[in-house]
Amino acid sequence: MNSDQLETVLKDAEAAHRAACATPLALDLTRGKPAASQLDAANALDGILGGQFLDQDGNDTRNYGGPLGIPELRALGGAVLDAPAAQVMAGGNSSLTLMYQFVDAALRFGFGGQSPWGEGAKMLCPVPGYDRHFAIGEHLGIELIPIPMTEAGPDMDAAEAAVAADPAIKAIWCVPKYSNPTGVSVSETVTARLAALPKRAGPGFTVLWDNAYAVHDLTETPAPLPSLWAAAEREGTLDAMALFASTSKMSWAGGGVAFFASGPQTFAGFAKHLSFQMIGPDKVNQLRHARLFPTLDALKAHMAEHRALLAPKFDAVLKALDEGLGNTGLAHWTVPEGGYFVSVDLVPGTAKAVVELAAEAGVKLTPAGATHPYGQDPQDQTLRLAPSFPPLADVEAAMAVFVNCVRLAGARQRLKERR
Amino acid sequence: MNSDQLETVLKDAEAAHRAACATPLALDLTRGKPAASQLDAANALDGILGGQFLDQDGNDTRNYGGPLGIPELRALGGAVLDAPAAQVMAGGNSSLTLMYQFVDAALRFGFGGQSPWGEGAKMLCPVPGYDRHFAIGEHLGIELIPIPMTEAGPDMDAAEAAVAADPAIKAIWCVPKYSNPTGVSVSETVTARLAALPKRAGPGFTVLWDNAYAVHDLTETPAPLPSLWAAAEREGTLDAMALFASTSKMSWAGGGVAFFASGPQTFAGFAKHLSFQMIGPDKVNQLRHARLFPTLDALKAHMAEHRALLAPKFDAVLKALDEGLGNTGLAHWTVPEGGYFVSVDLVPGTAKAVVELAAEAGVKLTPAGATHPYGQDPQDQTLRLAPSFPPLADVEAAMAVFVNCVRLAGARQRLKERR
Repeated sequence: MNSDQLETVLKDAEAAHRAACATPLALDLTRGKPAASQLDAANALDGILGGQFLDQDGNDTRNYGGPLGIPELRALGGAVLDAPAAQVMAGGNSSLTLMYQFVDAALRFGFGGQSPWGEGAKMLCPVPGYDRHFAIGEHLGIELIPIPMTEAGPDMDAAEAAVAADPAIKAIWCVPKYSNPTGVSVSETVTARLAALPKRAGPGFTVLWDNAYAVHDLTETPAPLPSLWAAAEREGTLDAMALFASTSKMSWAGGGVAFFASGPQTFAGFAKHLSFQMIGPDKVNQLRHARLFPTLDALKAHMAEHRALLAPKFDAVLKALDEGLGNTGLAHWTVPEGGYFVSVDLVPGTAKAVVELAAEAGVKLTPAGATHPYGQDPQDQTLRLAPSFPPLADVEAAMAVFVNCVRLAGARQRLKERR
Repeated sequence: MNSDQLETVLKDAEAAHRAACATPLALDLTRGKPAASQLDAANALDGILGGQFLDQDGNDTRNYGGPLGIPELRALGGAVLDAPAAQVMAGGNSSLTLMYQFVDAALRFGFGGQSPWGEGAKMLCPVPGYDRHFAIGEHLGIELIPIPMTEAGPDMDAAEAAVAADPAIKAIWCVPKYSNPTGVSVSETVTARLAALPKRAGPGFTVLWDNAYAVHDLTETPAPLPSLWAAAEREGTLDAMALFASTSKMSWAGGGVAFFASGPQTFAGFAKHLSFQMIGPDKVNQLRHARLFPTLDALKAHMAEHRALLAPKFDAVLKALDEGLGNTGLAHWTVPEGGYFVSVDLVPGTAKAVVELAAEAGVKLTPAGATHPYGQDPQDQTLRLAPSFPPLADVEAAMAVFVNCVRLAGARQRLKERR
């Protein structure tokens, strides 16, 4: 756009923004929360047991014990993570907790006689990425090293160079499918290079593979995710893999079951560490999930219900972006085929301004910088949109505000640069 | 008993033991697990929600969020812990997890700007006590300092002298009611002295008050527990108190709700620390518990059902001890009015032998030493009996074996000492 066009955009956007602020909305696009309608799909969970509380091995799920979870759920976790059930643990309601516990244990204790990561440990953080991943590292005193995300996953050239140069780098975060927030899935090549990465790195290096969106497709014909397990088996690096998932965005976000998988030595070492802080997970809730999702096919059928609810919201986001920002040069965005987010790259230097403008009009966005380590987006350009929770009409209303704020801040910034 | 009498006891016991080993039992008195019949009393939990998932504030328990738990359960926890609901957190299924997380956070981070305990921290462990308490400290590299248990709780003369002499002592464990394993409840005086203990100790000193058996009475007229909260409020030491409880031995051992309470600064600091490892507890399960236990009276009525199931088992244990060991001088034991355990002090030097003998006859006992820090009972004399899980007839059968093993090992040891 030339300057005249930008002036017109700015004037129109300012007028629209004043109007929007006069009757502000109260909408929230901040977090990847399921909508109530998605949660309703799992309402059978309550009362599903019908007085039968034994798992398939005959153990009473109501009592203490069974720290690795019930066999049915370990098998389900194995199907979700593409790992053998014997190497899968079914835990409590939060994979974030398992990730924290794992990183903490790796940092301070190590697994199976291996040295802990120790003081000065660093982790690779593909950006844009998930703020809660980065926060675990930061809270535990681990240095966060950003590396770029590509269209096929983490930039493996950057990752390989980094770990070869610095043995204090002990981990890499990765959301392999429908990455938070770009929606990218890892390619076969990236998966193979991730499986081989520990061989180039210092001792204890671990791939933190958070498969949060394993069955969260927005299309009916999703591409299969390459198998990290198979690749790591070939490389002999299974003990350097830590796989995570949960049913939080399948059944109930607050009342699901989390999964962990790794090679035998790391798995046993982590289980031993956990034995000091728990006697067993909530196996009753695991049994409920086994009844609701007796097979991977049953789970996939359930997720098709979610897709029917979510796809229109993502369509509305993309339509608003196309119509309001297409061919303006003021934004670029991803078109995810699954997951919970759309990532938008704005005119550099405007992400914070857009969040502030949207807030004035009553639309809450994830804070600028949240997708980067330490909350610092050096270009101030990336924002994450999370359309799952509000009803469709609210998503549309919020997106109208968002698009206008991007036009306003973007045109203003471009004009400033030209002066 | 004179030597002749001891010889007779030994001969009879050896014969009985040979007979018992010929047809060994397969019984387990090791852990304080509720019996299936107790768990049955809470079976209404599954299906209790009837499609209503909102807490009293209108929040959807199925979704993310609410890290402090739902208000109904925070109130119930407050009633159980005798603390204001605003200072109570309702968590996941394990108070052991909350204790580990709390001790870990105190050790490494501190709360509300206070210094962490740091390297070289030590904790006071009343003995005999709970092995999992001691294991938390040991795993985290905290030095365990044993102090005696008295008939009124931890030996406060010893505790006060220890903390005054060594500011590296940062905590004391305490099971205030029906202590594991002696069954002792703390007196008014001990409670007051515990509340004042932080004033004599180094910075960050915390009373770890694990009220695991708050409503687990074996009599119909239980003595009320003195209020630690009120005492600490008077002393101005609320932030140095950490109170824990759970419904594990009220509803379902593996599927209950855990509670934590402390003063405002410590409470907020701990909640902040937890925010890095979880988004919220399983609030659906909390809501189930709110429906099952809408009031403290409802909870107490429920616990009366447990009492009816447990009291006969404890009676059987005490009857067997009385009849088999009364006036022999070979054992002393506690007569608990609640909780899950009977603690037996044997002839010094025979606890390990009794565990081995009982195992030969097919009766599994908690390992000797488990009641002491590092598993080391210097006198080798204390064993913990846990009669809750097996059916009554099995408790009787196991106790017959136990009593005979105590007679055998005790008489043998006494005779050895006289030679």
